[in-house]
Amino acid sequence: MGETSIWIDGAPAGALELPDRAFAYGDGLFETLLLRGSRPLLLELHLDRLRVGLQRLGFPDCMDSVSEYLARAAAAEAGADLFRVLRLTVSRGGGPRGYAPPADCRPRVVISVSSLKVEPDRFPAPARLGETSVRWGRQPLLAGLKHLNRLEQVLAAADCDPHNCDEVLMLDQSGMPLSVSAGNLFLVAGKRLLTPSLDEAGIAGTRRRLILERLAAVCGLQAAETRLELSQLLAASELFYCNSVIGLRPVGTFRDRRWLEHPVTRRLHVAYLECLGE
Amino acid sequence: MGETSIWIDGAPAGALELPDRAFAYGDGLFETLLLRGSRPLLLELHLDRLRVGLQRLGFPDCMDSVSEYLARAAAAEAGADLFRVLRLTVSRGGGPRGYAPPADCRPRVVISVSSLKVEPDRFPAPARLGETSVRWGRQPLLAGLKHLNRLEQVLAAADCDPHNCDEVLMLDQSGMPLSVSAGNLFLVAGKRLLTPSLDEAGIAGTRRRLILERLAAVCGLQAAETRLELSQLLAASELFYCNSVIGLRPVGTFRDRRWLEHPVTRRLHVAYLECLGE
Repeated sequence: MGETSIWIDGAPAGALELPDRAFAYGDGLFETLLLRGSRPLLLELHLDRLRVGLQRLGFPDCMDSVSEYLARAAAAEAGADLFRVLRLTVSRGGGPRGYAPPADCRPRVVISVSSLKVEPDRFPAPARLGETSVRWGRQPLLAGLKHLNRLEQVLAAADCDPHNCDEVLMLDQSGMPLSVSAGNLFLVAGKRLLTPSLDEAGIAGTRRRLILERLAAVCGLQAAETRLELSQLLAASELFYCNSVIGLRPVGTFRDRRWLEHPVTRRLHVAYLECLGE
Repeated sequence: MGETSIWIDGAPAGALELPDRAFAYGDGLFETLLLRGSRPLLLELHLDRLRVGLQRLGFPDCMDSVSEYLARAAAAEAGADLFRVLRLTVSRGGGPRGYAPPADCRPRVVISVSSLKVEPDRFPAPARLGETSVRWGRQPLLAGLKHLNRLEQVLAAADCDPHNCDEVLMLDQSGMPLSVSAGNLFLVAGKRLLTPSLDEAGIAGTRRRLILERLAAVCGLQAAETRLELSQLLAASELFYCNSVIGLRPVGTFRDRRWLEHPVTRRLHVAYLECLGE
């Protein structure tokens, strides 16, 4: 926390003017970007998702401001080639009491830049994957978006610690595997790479998209979105999850299953690092 | 907005220190109370629901602070017998980046007190009830709570204006009526008073509870929570919705149906005003 700097609408700040609709209702969206020096990595993937989210939530277009403020915050305090993490939040801003969005709303862009403990260019240690009873709600209207209504993931993540695991598997309302608390899930089955479809819940991760649209093909894999059964996870030759900060992390243990080798995940990770370097 | 005063942890304030988990993830709860002078009305109903919510979300107990700060804010600037509205928000507070709640979290209590346009002691004019395509997500774990993840209601409320109606009916994922965007729904059928059950979605309103547990019996009605069909709404002898600010508001029109008289809703409203006066 001491190493976090915060910007509101392009200016350094430490406090948010109230009322604010992100605070009141979670009325907004966010992105978590990896910075290398002052360069936001895979920026277009983040901006694409944010653009879609702003449209779905009926925000006025504020992508020019977003890009400007983001560049400003990323450029500040950049230590050479150092990795940092930048959280970009777009709130619908202030307004009178009540759920209805004001007709003349002025979105606010809040950016925080933090130092990073993990090293995104190293292949992460295999994770202990646990389980949580917290399931994704079913809500097709908001599925895929990285909006600010994230209580499900907060409660799921709280289950990592007592179970002494690195991540937890989250199921959907029908009991099918959907993701981990902070990342998308993939399994390897021969030449196939499968990930849960996100029509009814979940977040369409930027790394998930990159893997589906690009990295799978580079590694000679056939990627698909589908409904996954728990039994398929346990039968998979490899399992991994991904997000913008850790990249791709192999699962080492889940229930009574252990995976000692992760050759496909390693190949994908090499291809991923090449994308980061572009 | 100009007539809103804001308190954070018991002190007047206008800005919120960042990071804050309510802003970042909607990690918190709220209550909207009606004040008469410096007296919060039906306070115990609000504190009961908040207490349940704090437990379900795994917050540390902060009910003593909540009561103290609430009394302080309610006592300030009280104009005689004037009605005002007080929003009480409990955020999980600050903490490092990431979904997992910090072990040592210190909840923040944010209170805003605003003037009121409606007159809560008058029977409201019959409402035009419209419809929205925004449905409640299915999430039994959070159902009933007044938490801060309210994007569904924000999007639903946005549908009132273009359709020129006072409120919109929200369905659940299976297409059954569940509530309006900012209130619970009741129908009158003879001596029966029915309201949708909230096992899978929705907010357990304080006025809903009061009606179910007390006002219905006072008025000689048999109240029940149940699954309601759209056809039952249209066949009802009366329809109304309720929340803490407007009290009970009769529905005057819905689709091609008009209700000109609201005798049962009026009786319930009289009983409601007596409760407010206690």
